[in-house]
Amino acid sequence: MNGTTLSTPQPHHSLHSSVTKTTSLTFSPIQSLTFRHRTHKRNHSFRIRCSSSRPPVVVVGSANADVYVEIERLPREGETLAAKSGQTLAGGKGANQATCAAKLAYPTYFVGQIGDDAYGSLVAAALRGAGVRVDQLSVVASEPTGHAVVMLQSNGQNSIIYIGGANVSGWPSALPREHLELVAQAGIVLLQREIPDPVIAQVAQAASKAGVPVVLDAGGMEGPFPPQLLNFVDILSPNETELARITGMPTESFEEIAQAALKCHELKNVVAIAVWLSFLLLGKIADNVVGIVVADCRVPTGVKQVLVKLGEKGSALFVEGEKPIQQSAILAKKVVDTTGAGDTFTAAFAVALVEGMSKKECLRFAAAAACLCVQVKGASPSMPDRKSVLDLLNCQ
Amino acid sequence: MNGTTLSTPQPHHSLHSSVTKTTSLTFSPIQSLTFRHRTHKRNHSFRIRCSSSRPPVVVVGSANADVYVEIERLPREGETLAAKSGQTLAGGKGANQATCAAKLAYPTYFVGQIGDDAYGSLVAAALRGAGVRVDQLSVVASEPTGHAVVMLQSNGQNSIIYIGGANVSGWPSALPREHLELVAQAGIVLLQREIPDPVIAQVAQAASKAGVPVVLDAGGMEGPFPPQLLNFVDILSPNETELARITGMPTESFEEIAQAALKCHELKNVVAIAVWLSFLLLGKIADNVVGIVVADCRVPTGVKQVLVKLGEKGSALFVEGEKPIQQSAILAKKVVDTTGAGDTFTAAFAVALVEGMSKKECLRFAAAAACLCVQVKGASPSMPDRKSVLDLLNCQ
Repeated sequence: MNGTTLSTPQPHHSLHSSVTKTTSLTFSPIQSLTFRHRTHKRNHSFRIRCSSSRPPVVVVGSANADVYVEIERLPREGETLAAKSGQTLAGGKGANQATCAAKLAYPTYFVGQIGDDAYGSLVAAALRGAGVRVDQLSVVASEPTGHAVVMLQSNGQNSIIYIGGANVSGWPSALPREHLELVAQAGIVLLQREIPDPVIAQVAQAASKAGVPVVLDAGGMEGPFPPQLLNFVDILSPNETELARITGMPTESFEEIAQAALKCHELKNVVAIAVWLSFLLLGKIADNVVGIVVADCRVPTGVKQVLVKLGEKGSALFVEGEKPIQQSAILAKKVVDTTGAGDTFTAAFAVALVEGMSKKECLRFAAAAACLCVQVKGASPSMPDRKSVLDLLNCQ
Repeated sequence: MNGTTLSTPQPHHSLHSSVTKTTSLTFSPIQSLTFRHRTHKRNHSFRIRCSSSRPPVVVVGSANADVYVEIERLPREGETLAAKSGQTLAGGKGANQATCAAKLAYPTYFVGQIGDDAYGSLVAAALRGAGVRVDQLSVVASEPTGHAVVMLQSNGQNSIIYIGGANVSGWPSALPREHLELVAQAGIVLLQREIPDPVIAQVAQAASKAGVPVVLDAGGMEGPFPPQLLNFVDILSPNETELARITGMPTESFEEIAQAALKCHELKNVVAIAVWLSFLLLGKIADNVVGIVVADCRVPTGVKQVLVKLGEKGSALFVEGEKPIQQSAILAKKVVDTTGAGDTFTAAFAVALVEGMSKKECLRFAAAAACLCVQVKGASPSMPDRKSVLDLLNCQ
């Protein structure tokens, strides 16, 4: 392969733990991979080409159709109600984040699953329309595309019924080689918890092994993180509610948030130390075996970086052993709709990071993107292009 | 035009009131019309050809996407619930009836409106897949395709939120010539009340003027019938609930149903007489003016035929001045899902009628089609083909 071997540190490598620091990453000016499209309908080989030498953002996650219905109140049992309006749009945290990264003009791939149905066509068209590469968007004929009915009530309350569909079912137990190869060639990998944990864990592990930084948005499923997942995550990105849920700690004040972030740094250590101790208690295990276990658990890496989204209160990046970096929200002239603002923030931060901006610059860039997002209705329609973000930053 | 002029009575003409009895209907072996496709996206001329000399069933009505979600219970305000399953299928009483007629191998056109969206593609593909001609299915870019969220609860209750979208909005105040020409060349016209009354009234009037029988399914909007609509309807087809609502009378026993049907025969007369009297009271109006008004209201035609669907209790056709014809339900081995059974019954009855079967045979044919429908889940997937219906009838 006529590739260029880049020695560390590269911008995105600066994110990584000491265990992976020595890994070097190889890409060719035109990267190409041959693989099979995983669909029950078609089964042919093709090639992906990254026409840019920039290693892409790769988002592995959910793609939904969101069925918005605007109603006076919820219907009762057996009742039929007319809605004031209805609109069905592409959504899902994975697709949203991919859309945002692509709209910010960074080469972006989306890896996910849709069903062989109208919602799948809607989602694929929306991703393509935003400039996202969907070569690795698989069609699972046995499942519907994930969708959610969002009932927007006059009193401001939203009730949601969601169908996981192809986002949560029909994944192969071992991810296809083509997904893992794409991940290994990424500049950064973005994950969320709307697809099964074992899928996320495989992706994170493949990225980590290749020295590719992994950002895990904490949104989605609410269960505890499986330890094998957090082993491979570089940046965990919760909002304040998710941070409180993950840590079981209050997150009202900045001090409380900082304490909770500190607990995130330690979350994995507890598991790793428990494994360490359990092996030590076995007594007869040779030193080298314990050594292997410890290496695999990567004690004492922890979740070194916690990126907390605080809405109108801004954001903060907590890097283990360093002083927190705070960023105020860039206030919008008028907040129209906050849907997708969190996804916009996470994706914009990741794009800035992979482009080599400093952490402080990354936070500012993400804040500007989120500020533009809340001024337009909807998720993907509200995600700004790069010029708008840069114009806003230049005005600040 | 090298057409064949058929003199009355023809099978479908036998349905018609004395006012239109003398009208003769002209069609060519290959009927062709040139007209403009009413869409905001394309604007080109094309030709429709009815490859069969049989005048088609023309359904003018609603086309929906039905979003079925299976849930334990309804969500509360602000709550997010996971559904057990979700499926989105083509529906709408108009599209259902067109699908049924086409699956019964009778040439069928559907006239309706969809939005320029994923649901529109779903609906159009489903209609085409069933063999329905969709040349006159218009795309209204400013409206979403009509859709309904059907929340199927564990206790058997269904709650529905519907969005009329392109079914109820964006219709031109005067229907395009091509729609009215198609209707005038139909063998029978099927209407329901899920599109605006003025649209239905224009279609019914154009059909009536051309001597084409009109069947109005009473399902859909619940308001009173505008008098100009009922003037042009040959067969009104309610189920027992709709019959009770229309007449304000009980419909528990057959005698009560017969009384209610009798009231339907008189519904229009009341309006016509009121108009007559109001004109008489003006005093100064010349006889010929009153004469025109009376001719337009067609006193004393009434809704001469009432086709009542009674579910497992069968069906009955009440023709004014004749003995009612009753048909028992053909009992299904196992009732799986009654969705679409009423639409199947109405459409199968219309197909049988346009094919020249006797009224008694029409009822039997429709009963057999409905019996097959309830044995399969869903609306359009459960609509039987002609062979299945004939096989069932031969077994009886």
